[in-house]
Amino acid sequence: MVFQRKWNIVLSNPKKRNALSLAMLKSLQSDILHEAESQDLKVIVISAEGPVFSSGHDLRELTDEQSPDYHAEVFRTCSEVMMLIQNHPVPIIAMVNGLATAAGCQLVASCDIAVASDKSSFATPGVNLGLFCSTPGVALGRAVPRKVASEMLFTGEPISAQEALLHGLLSKVVPEGQLEEETMKIAKKIASSSRHVVSLGKAAFNKQLRQDLRTAYHLTSQTMVDNLALPDGQEGIKAFIQKRKPIWAQ
Amino acid sequence: MVFQRKWNIVLSNPKKRNALSLAMLKSLQSDILHEAESQDLKVIVISAEGPVFSSGHDLRELTDEQSPDYHAEVFRTCSEVMMLIQNHPVPIIAMVNGLATAAGCQLVASCDIAVASDKSSFATPGVNLGLFCSTPGVALGRAVPRKVASEMLFTGEPISAQEALLHGLLSKVVPEGQLEEETMKIAKKIASSSRHVVSLGKAAFNKQLRQDLRTAYHLTSQTMVDNLALPDGQEGIKAFIQKRKPIWAQ
Amino acid sequence: MVFQRKWNIVLSNPKKRNALSLAMLKSLQSDILHEAESQDLKVIVISAEGPVFSSGHDLRELTDEQSPDYHAEVFRTCSEVMMLIQNHPVPIIAMVNGLATAAGCQLVASCDIAVASDKSSFATPGVNLGLFCSTPGVALGRAVPRKVASEMLFTGEPISAQEALLHGLLSKVVPEGQLEEETMKIAKKIASSSRHVVSLGKAAFNKQLRQDLRTAYHLTSQTMVDNLALPDGQEGIKAFIQKRKPIWAQ
Repeated sequence: MVFQRKWNIVLSNPKKRNALSLAMLKSLQSDILHEAESQDLKVIVISAEGPVFSSGHDLRELTDEQSPDYHAEVFRTCSEVMMLIQNHPVPIIAMVNGLATAAGCQLVASCDIAVASDKSSFATPGVNLGLFCSTPGVALGRAVPRKVASEMLFTGEPISAQEALLHGLLSKVVPEGQLEEETMKIAKKIASSSRHVVSLGKAAFNKQLRQDLRTAYHLTSQTMVDNLALPDGQEGIKAFIQKRKPIWAQ
Repeated sequence: MVFQRKWNIVLSNPKKRNALSLAMLKSLQSDILHEAESQDLKVIVISAEGPVFSSGHDLRELTDEQSPDYHAEVFRTCSEVMMLIQNHPVPIIAMVNGLATAAGCQLVASCDIAVASDKSSFATPGVNLGLFCSTPGVALGRAVPRKVASEMLFTGEPISAQEALLHGLLSKVVPEGQLEEETMKIAKKIASSSRHVVSLGKAAFNKQLRQDLRTAYHLTSQTMVDNLALPDGQEGIKAFIQKRKPIWAQ
Repeated sequence: MVFQRKWNIVLSNPKKRNALSLAMLKSLQSDILHEAESQDLKVIVISAEGPVFSSGHDLRELTDEQSPDYHAEVFRTCSEVMMLIQNHPVPIIAMVNGLATAAGCQLVASCDIAVASDKSSFATPGVNLGLFCSTPGVALGRAVPRKVASEMLFTGEPISAQEALLHGLLSKVVPEGQLEEETMKIAKKIASSSRHVVSLGKAAFNKQLRQDLRTAYHLTSQTMVDNLALPDGQEGIKAFIQKRKPIWAQ
């Protein structure tokens, strides 16, 4: 058994600007699900080859040569991938070095954490091609203020990495030369925690976000009690009190 | 038939600081609805004459010389104008050059996009006059973080254009001399897209924002399929693949 | 009768880093409720002694020497304190000078307004001890963008006061020497308004935030009409029109 703490997914079709064709989406879905239940998996990093992180859907699949049913399958699959990221038991980090547009921008917005090089940029330019970025708007509108998302969606103009950071689309912006190092530092930090604890916390965090305050506190108070009842919950607290490093079961 | 791509609405009662009296609100409502269904209308810009964008409600209408029913009509009409902006088929841009307070600040917060000169400022000072900015708080609380909105609402103190940009109330801040040029650049960019596509996208974006993720993706995936079935949807994609400029039906 | 405009609550167990033990939480709850109905109380400021604002729960209460029922009581009480802050009739300000972690960070996030010295920092490091900050995530996730909250929750790494301001966790950051003065300026400004008006506004603001736009405007339009019917509502408007200072009944 390989001791696998981190799982790297690389979008590796730079010639096609890492377009999220239906085949690419299915491969991404399968990659994300790969060993999802493995207790050794602690964190996933999604990066890309080439100067474009991802240009979004493959437009050649969206002409009227394909049926509306085929189009529907493309968007359904894409939405499933985006929801899978949030429902996955371990945190998923986007490591972006370049341009992320349309569903590529949606992918960044859907990850739990996103680190980008300062040369990266982000856009939802579908409107310029007559195809409004409505599905990317779901993730974008939950990541940045409405005024920022609206300008991006209605004009298609890109925002810089710094603007994306300012408005909440990114967690961190670093010089290109430090991108991998900084991302791995975050991944490593996450991988040093108990997978069981992180999974419990991630699920509760995403679930409570849309609940009213009372329901949210009711849910998460129970999560805290359940967390304490885990072996790793008690180990962590005991290690802290005993001033030693914890040894996680998971 | 005039080929009308952009519709300018100007608040033009600078002597009264562009107060949103009931008459002004009804005029604004009628202006916003003007040719809303015209296929030539692509974008609306709301600006103002004088150093105050708008000072909010006309307090003379809110004394006890008017009945509670009259007061209720003022707030109902104002709320209808603000919701109309979001439900309108084309994007509405606020172009702000000066002070926007109370319902004036609410108007800026309600627009899809807001561009302001760097001398502009924003406040919800009703609390200082014994009339808490509760209706402006609806739009403000959906534009900026709760901590920022709370301080503005509880103290009445203004924030600068830069702070407003930082916190999501504005899309862009520019020097006064470039305000019109920068706003028109955005308006022109929007007007270069298909009205049909933009309208479909705007409606879906605003609708999905408050939905849970699964419902939001279900709605917008269908919007994408519908968008592709539009003549302008197919024209845009074909033009892109053929490397030519699209010619929109709308 | 003491003319009490402002009520200071001081976390004063610096030796234990102002840990929110069950006893401390109950004392905080009782302090916050102290004279809550007094018409003279206008604003509450929560501060702390020592270099740590609060380190969150007392971990010694969360070992398996205590029963799950006891753990549940700790989190229930903590959640009640946090909700009490939002449901309290007057604005509550956190004045932070130092480190606020876990439930201490949650306390800052739960206040209506938060002012911090530039040396302050904020973290939710529970994950490092095997106890994910699920309840703090409720308040944090409603204060800052999801990407920022996720990184804080999954890595446990602190953010600076400036980052906290940038992302909406704080209302204002000032040099340590000006912290009290700046906080008191805000408190004084709030205390100069009508308590009745502020209470009505605070309740409506927090209630409407999670409602759909139409319901929110329906609720707050009624709040505006009710506000105008208050003696202080009419006094404020008349004073403004007559260009004199208002004299509040409350």
